Amino acid sequence: MSYAELIAFEKQTQALGQVSGLLGWDQEAIMPPKAGAQRAEQMGAMAAVLHARRTDPRIGDWLTSIDAAALNPAEAANIRRIRRDWLRNERMPADLAEELAKLTSVGHGIWAQARADEDVAAFLPTLTRMVARQREAADAQKLDDETRYDALLDGYEPGMRTGPLTDILGGLRAPLSELRARIAESGHQPRALEGQFDADGQMAVARELATVFGYDWQAGRMDLVTHPFCSGTLTDVRITTRVDPIRPFDCLYSVVHEVGHAVYEQGLPLEHALTPAGGHVSMGVHESQSRMLENQMGRSRAFCTFLHGKMVAQFGIDLDAEQFYAAVNRVGPGFIRTEADEVHYNLHVLMRFDLERALIMGELEVSDLEAAWNERFEADFGVAVPQPSKGVLQDVHWSAGLFGYFPTYSLGNIYAAALFARLRAAVPSIDSDLERGETTAALAWLRENVHQHGSILTAPNLMERATGGPVTSAPLVEYLNAKFGDLYGF
Amino acid sequence: MSYAELIAFEKQTQALGQVSGLLGWDQEAIMPPKAGAQRAEQMGAMAAVLHARRTDPRIGDWLTSIDAAALNPAEAANIRRIRRDWLRNERMPADLAEELAKLTSVGHGIWAQARADEDVAAFLPTLTRMVARQREAADAQKLDDETRYDALLDGYEPGMRTGPLTDILGGLRAPLSELRARIAESGHQPRALEGQFDADGQMAVARELATVFGYDWQAGRMDLVTHPFCSGTLTDVRITTRVDPIRPFDCLYSVVHEVGHAVYEQGLPLEHALTPAGGHVSMGVHESQSRMLENQMGRSRAFCTFLHGKMVAQFGIDLDAEQFYAAVNRVGPGFIRTEADEVHYNLHVLMRFDLERALIMGELEVSDLEAAWNERFEADFGVAVPQPSKGVLQDVHWSAGLFGYFPTYSLGNIYAAALFARLRAAVPSIDSDLERGETTAALAWLRENVHQHGSILTAPNLMERATGGPVTSAPLVEYLNAKFGDLYGF
Repeated sequence: MSYAELIAFEKQTQALGQVSGLLGWDQEAIMPPKAGAQRAEQMGAMAAVLHARRTDPRIGDWLTSIDAAALNPAEAANIRRIRRDWLRNERMPADLAEELAKLTSVGHGIWAQARADEDVAAFLPTLTRMVARQREAADAQKLDDETRYDALLDGYEPGMRTGPLTDILGGLRAPLSELRARIAESGHQPRALEGQFDADGQMAVARELATVFGYDWQAGRMDLVTHPFCSGTLTDVRITTRVDPIRPFDCLYSVVHEVGHAVYEQGLPLEHALTPAGGHVSMGVHESQSRMLENQMGRSRAFCTFLHGKMVAQFGIDLDAEQFYAAVNRVGPGFIRTEADEVHYNLHVLMRFDLERALIMGELEVSDLEAAWNERFEADFGVAVPQPSKGVLQDVHWSAGLFGYFPTYSLGNIYAAALFARLRAAVPSIDSDLERGETTAALAWLRENVHQHGSILTAPNLMERATGGPVTSAPLVEYLNAKFGDLYGF
Repeated sequence: MSYAELIAFEKQTQALGQVSGLLGWDQEAIMPPKAGAQRAEQMGAMAAVLHARRTDPRIGDWLTSIDAAALNPAEAANIRRIRRDWLRNERMPADLAEELAKLTSVGHGIWAQARADEDVAAFLPTLTRMVARQREAADAQKLDDETRYDALLDGYEPGMRTGPLTDILGGLRAPLSELRARIAESGHQPRALEGQFDADGQMAVARELATVFGYDWQAGRMDLVTHPFCSGTLTDVRITTRVDPIRPFDCLYSVVHEVGHAVYEQGLPLEHALTPAGGHVSMGVHESQSRMLENQMGRSRAFCTFLHGKMVAQFGIDLDAEQFYAAVNRVGPGFIRTEADEVHYNLHVLMRFDLERALIMGELEVSDLEAAWNERFEADFGVAVPQPSKGVLQDVHWSAGLFGYFPTYSLGNIYAAALFARLRAAVPSIDSDLERGETTAALAWLRENVHQHGSILTAPNLMERATGGPVTSAPLVEYLNAKFGDLYGF
């Protein structure tokens, strides 16, 4: 009875969480301009309802009286997740939770203004308070033998700890720096795709790409936003993109990326809807699905052949297929993470991971952050940061209190490469499939090995089963070296 | 303190109610086809949260300890509405509320199937239970000297009672029957507008009409649906329409109608947002705003001159302005209320009001309903009902438990005519304004006399102040006789 009562309560809470998610989607995608204040009231009311449910003392009572031995694997996974969240919520002092909510709410505006003004000092007091409160919150919430950073990381990558994560990510920095340097030294730079690409044409190709990568239009829709994202789960997963008339790849590969997230959500086990077992297992695994479709598949030579045909038909571009493939995969140094190519992207993330971990662990203070950022950037990218908006002020995450989130981006890339190596072995026709815009067999493999498991397995278990062993960065390094050595002639 | 606490609680409840409204809009307008079951879970979770709040015993405590003498008019209006809802909710037995919710939920499907099958008998058991439970609910909830039907009516037209309502509506049936007969006997029938009207063209004109009638696009949006409606309030009021290639007036006048609802919601007092004082005062007044824009303004000769110009420009129609005006206002008998012209519409509503009041009061049983419907229809419309989908099964309301709603449609028409007579006196330029697609002065009058008052005044007080005396059906009868006497030559 306790289990049934707990799950009935959890399902209603998750349904309300989905409603909050829809409010967020609506706000970004289609809400009328004047509705902001009204929407804030609605979001606040939903947050209050959700907070009350997540700290409802009955959860503790139910958890205490459940007979763990009687649970099947999905039920056990549900209890594992619910217990973890409950323990953390229970340990979080109410006044600290409230202060963090307020800081997060005002922090965004202060950060955005500071970035617009190129004024780091204007953001530092807020960030200092944010880091101090995050440290306190992590100290309050950490379980068992977790470190302070572990407690934050676990919110995005359940079961992952800082030690193993540092080991996994640590293998990336030297090979990526070397690859970056070799590309820069190659003196080779392929032609970029140039021209004007009308919005209707971009959206027509984008819709075709979404279909090609298995997006179920009956269980979703696509709209235009400022910053693309994917929202929702199972039978209602909405994707978004944006259109820049001179950068069609921004639109097209945003769509493929979001479709990667979307097919994961659409492929989760429906029979476990509204329970933790039916949800995504971690942000790293989520990102692995988006990055694999975007990069290992979408930016492959094989798929670029297919896309080239579409671009010739839609826009009459004058690059040949090989030039097009090179243009899609052009590597260049850049200051902005979200615009980075496959080679530079993880160098961005690694430095954020190291910096935020040091901030949280008390090894770095906010007053020294900008200097540490700039020094690390120059060391890893070979160029100096020219202004804060291209440096320490570029990302929204820290102003939003999202400490522990950054490393899941690189983990996603590492997972993607490890999974794709196995997928390639299981689907030998993958290249010829992608050349024809055919992804059925590849998606079936992902469904079977990743999507359908929801959160019944832990992320490490899921990855180990799917890839045949502990995850390392080796497949990603191997993939990048092979691809870009070929493209840049070394 | 009690007042402040009660209002803070009420505001959060209303914000959650707005969220439920948005879920409904999303479902009808843009939700992916497969998302139905998931949405039902979300709506159910929101309904449970709202029900718990609306029956929260703290409301009773707060109401008891408020010093009524210290309240200003808006505060007094808030307490009046909150107390009324609280008393009704408190008196409603929980098991009856649950059974009604279930009946409403399954009733729609059973009714829709029965209508599709032309099978009245298939719907009767459900309707019989619905009427029985509605009688019980009304008996439980009625306050003071209310009759059973009063208790239901008050949910849609607060402060209105069956007696005065019957008096107001009662003046309509004979003059409308006479007008209907004179038109039929006139032998005159203007040309209809014929042709094909492409969807993009219809929507272009529809958007222009919305703008002309003062719709604030920064505080709303327009989408396509099966059955047009208006959703939301104040800074986020969304309208909807539909497009039929051979019936452009369906699209265009749906938009004007929904814009009437929308400008009311957009013009409510923002300083009272999320409290009863800041909401619409009654369904009748709401409908008066939509019907006035649709009929008294939108179907006037003056405005038809303006619209004729738009239709010539957009579609090259071959009617002249006077023929166009006649085509817009073509009168004909029909079986379906929602498709009825201005002359027949209220005859439809009056018979539903009489039938549902008799059902609720126990003067008519469900088993006799179809016969009573068919007999009344033939008496009032001069033709026999050919099949149930064109008769007793045509409307969704009773299957949804909306007893007491129907009369507010006619009340809206009566209010509209009474208000418009005063508006015309206050804005002598109204005809020349409408000829130019100009509504600023008319809307300003509505803002001042109706919209800005929210629910601070009761509906009867609002109408009396705006029209200078008690409301009667005389201005509507006068308006219809003049307009259609002119059009049909008597």
